[in-house]
Amino acid sequence: MIATKGYAAPAAKTPLAPFNFERREPGPHDVQFDILYCGVCHSDLHQVGDEWGHGIFPMVPGHEIVGRVTKVGSHVTKFKVGDLAGVGCMVDSCRKCENCAEGLEQYCLNGMSGTYNGYEQDKKTPTYGGYSNLMVVDEAYTLKISDKLDLAAVAPLLCAGITTYSPLRHWKVGKGHKVAILGLGGLGHMAVKFAVSFGAEVTMLSTSPSKQTDAEKLGAHKFLLTTNPDNLKAAAASFDFIIDTVSAEHDYNQYLALLKTNGAMICVGAPPTPSVISSFSLILGRKTLAGSMIGGIEETQEMLDYCAEHNIVSDIELIDMNYIQKAYERMLKADVRYRFVIDMATL
Amino acid sequence: MIATKGYAAPAAKTPLAPFNFERREPGPHDVQFDILYCGVCHSDLHQVGDEWGHGIFPMVPGHEIVGRVTKVGSHVTKFKVGDLAGVGCMVDSCRKCENCAEGLEQYCLNGMSGTYNGYEQDKKTPTYGGYSNLMVVDEAYTLKISDKLDLAAVAPLLCAGITTYSPLRHWKVGKGHKVAILGLGGLGHMAVKFAVSFGAEVTMLSTSPSKQTDAEKLGAHKFLLTTNPDNLKAAAASFDFIIDTVSAEHDYNQYLALLKTNGAMICVGAPPTPSVISSFSLILGRKTLAGSMIGGIEETQEMLDYCAEHNIVSDIELIDMNYIQKAYERMLKADVRYRFVIDMATL
Repeated sequence: MIATKGYAAPAAKTPLAPFNFERREPGPHDVQFDILYCGVCHSDLHQVGDEWGHGIFPMVPGHEIVGRVTKVGSHVTKFKVGDLAGVGCMVDSCRKCENCAEGLEQYCLNGMSGTYNGYEQDKKTPTYGGYSNLMVVDEAYTLKISDKLDLAAVAPLLCAGITTYSPLRHWKVGKGHKVAILGLGGLGHMAVKFAVSFGAEVTMLSTSPSKQTDAEKLGAHKFLLTTNPDNLKAAAASFDFIIDTVSAEHDYNQYLALLKTNGAMICVGAPPTPSVISSFSLILGRKTLAGSMIGGIEETQEMLDYCAEHNIVSDIELIDMNYIQKAYERMLKADVRYRFVIDMATL
Repeated sequence: MIATKGYAAPAAKTPLAPFNFERREPGPHDVQFDILYCGVCHSDLHQVGDEWGHGIFPMVPGHEIVGRVTKVGSHVTKFKVGDLAGVGCMVDSCRKCENCAEGLEQYCLNGMSGTYNGYEQDKKTPTYGGYSNLMVVDEAYTLKISDKLDLAAVAPLLCAGITTYSPLRHWKVGKGHKVAILGLGGLGHMAVKFAVSFGAEVTMLSTSPSKQTDAEKLGAHKFLLTTNPDNLKAAAASFDFIIDTVSAEHDYNQYLALLKTNGAMICVGAPPTPSVISSFSLILGRKTLAGSMIGGIEETQEMLDYCAEHNIVSDIELIDMNYIQKAYERMLKADVRYRFVIDMATL
């Protein structure tokens, strides 16, 4: 076993603290890499707080991980020592079910292994995430990372990037579409970048007038302040798609009203409490409310390659490891533009 | 103007009573026909009770209407005196918006004219429905009815039929799909017939064991009693589609759990109160909750022609006009298999 250093929440709702643990020696198909940067996802907050239940503690969060390979197993073909590598939200899945066979490992019917707060496929070995100094992962779940981009700003692509890229691709969003992005945070700012890059006309929906300048900088063509009912009225039935990135409770009906006939609102945020929905919001105009969760391994690689080709990264604020509690506090106030990334050299 | 006899609710939540009113003389594009049969839709109950608000009283319900043409305007080409004719949920729309242009008149952006409890396109002349002896409607919103089928059993196709046919077609449901139908009432029994006819494997979901025999008679391949949690567990992630015909409050999450990855639940019932939904029900498995409302004129004609070709009609109980209050009471107890149809000769 390999002695590993990290930061963990010892129990639910408890501040993170240094934590020593072990990772497996790399097997024939494994890649070992030193973690250079790890993004801080809003779901880290939800899970450290055990808001979704069933939390596994001590918990080492982090699933937006990039680093440099230090060791490869004998059967590894994709990586060699010195290569850049990345890991997102999962480190394994059953590899046998129809979803795994279709490259939808994130929806593995036997349960994928989350990068942290999950179990390996033996269903008993806990997984520990990227707030740590090294990682050992099967190469099939490890992503190739281009050296063309700012590496720290690449890290959030592994979750925030694929979470917004995947639904935009699945729903074939592009030229000629009017797309609204609900919520300008880690997910929202990536959704704007991708939707703009795919050729859509992009409107940022926000409750905060201060976000208008930022939205425009990110490439959004329009900005709609949703706190003004007149704005909502004027925008009724005007969007083909809404990407809903909000992870706090909100009223779906208000936003479904902004969709055109046959329009779709796709939820990628995960509010811990359910929302109410009137069937009229869906029936009138044949509308769709859908969900999407991260993306499969092949699609994640496609997204990373697309980003390298089109020079797309996350807007980040680089922090030291011991700043994490302060970072969480600021995230609760949406005070981050738009992703904290931990410089793992500070561990 | 033409003196017309009907049955109306004088005010919200008031029993229906005989009501005399006038219809316009047929214009150059109008068809006048004697109503022979009118189906009793669950939405009649909702609207007479003003459960959806904005009710226009006195209200003559009825939007599942078939009859025989007695007069045609000078420009009418589709109908001649003596032909059978049908009218569903709408009698006009703006004919100019992009939805009307695409044959989606039910989603007319300027507001379609409901067959009753609505206004003509002048936005001030109230419309009166099929609980009456005659009808005058533009031929563009009048359907051709085959004489091959039992005419009384055809009437419910104009709403219950198209409401279930349209989403099954829109979502391309057919061979190789596992489809669940939620709720065995007027809509549900038509959904079973169509889904079976389109080649899907059909499961009836019901809270009532007594419906099993009926579901099988209608052609359902399987029956799942939803009051038993073990049944729901065993059926998790097993359906490609669920057609949700329930118009009372119910828990969407419970049924979304029965969908496979990428599955869709399509709501065609309209509960007066909203339901709660957890975004996890959509995100895990990239699922869709969608709505659908009746169908356009062209699609309604396609459905009627399909039914004539495949010998599909509604299962009905023929009633006299003065039985209507009793019929409403029985509908509230789901005591009808599966549609009351008024024999308009009894008016």
